[in-house]
Amino acid sequence: MANNEILVYGDSISGNCYKIQLLCAHLDIAHDWQEVDILAGDTRTPEFLAMNANGKIPLLALADGRYLPESNAILAYLAEGYELAGTDKFSRAQVLRWMFFEQYSHEPNIATSRFIVKYLGSPPDRQAALEEKSIGGYKALDVMEKRLEDSEFIAGTTYSIADVALYAYTHVAHEGGFDLQE
Amino acid sequence: MANNEILVYGDSISGNCYKIQLLCAHLDIAHDWQEVDILAGDTRTPEFLAMNANGKIPLLALADGRYLPESNAILAYLAEGYELAGTDKFSRAQVLRWMFFEQYSHEPNIATSRFIVKYLGSPPDRQAALEEKSIGGYKALDVMEKRLEDSEFIAGTTYSIADVALYAYTHVAHEGGFDLQE
Repeated sequence: MANNEILVYGDSISGNCYKIQLLCAHLDIAHDWQEVDILAGDTRTPEFLAMNANGKIPLLALADGRYLPESNAILAYLAEGYELAGTDKFSRAQVLRWMFFEQYSHEPNIATSRFIVKYLGSPPDRQAALEEKSIGGYKALDVMEKRLEDSEFIAGTTYSIADVALYAYTHVAHEGGFDLQE
Repeated sequence: MANNEILVYGDSISGNCYKIQLLCAHLDIAHDWQEVDILAGDTRTPEFLAMNANGKIPLLALADGRYLPESNAILAYLAEGYELAGTDKFSRAQVLRWMFFEQYSHEPNIATSRFIVKYLGSPPDRQAALEEKSIGGYKALDVMEKRLEDSEFIAGTTYSIADVALYAYTHVAHEGGFDLQE
């Protein structure tokens, strides 16, 4: 552990990791950053798997040696008690609702399309997957758009970690072939 | 709205809906149940999409006309303040961590394999998807098994809504072709 109380293992190309940087900037949370290279296999080493058996980043390391993976769980941990996590029982649940939407309906289509196009070079054997993800991705963007017609923020009446979570990959969705003008 | 304060729209064949029944039984939460038939397209009607634009169940309806979708957000809503949601900031985050793991790494492989095998009859054009989901599903089960070697419960030292979430499809994983003896 370096100077700060928390250390984030992350890859700068990853939107899931960018979420943590966004929230830390917003809440002015001092943290150390350990760059991890997904493409080089850094998350598949025995050392990394001992910290997170699921082999994924971001991973939060606390000063006492405990670890917390899953980007949206890290957001919830860092934002607990702040308005960003929701201000009452229902709004906290709505924040989680949109974060689960993000991980189930949005990220697997929009983030992985970007990964295939931008980092894998859109190989021929992934074209069928890309087509399927395009359908799912536009569906997720439609659901967001319907919601944002009625509300400035995705989950409630104030900015929340659900906005942070959904911004991370939406703002680079074009890199996966999504046309956000539609 | 019928007699109780909450109404759950759900399909009895869905593990995501079963989670809500499990938690309501555990916490003795009175609720009404509105059966929705996914296979008949009940979640794609204009009436249903007006309640949840993402067209998914379970969907919680409150007596005041508000709606909450996403199975794990509903669990978090119903369990807020109970030990089941975690007992301190870190354990609450660990509960969420395993619920995000469930929706990202477990459900899309294990639940959807069951759906393809049991409800779609394992059609030829889904065999490649089944093979891919088999790899991802066994990987998720391995991650759970490693964790449960050290702990009776998945998220912390007590039973939590993360156990509820992961039990729902793990206990019927064999219906999707997964061998839990391994």
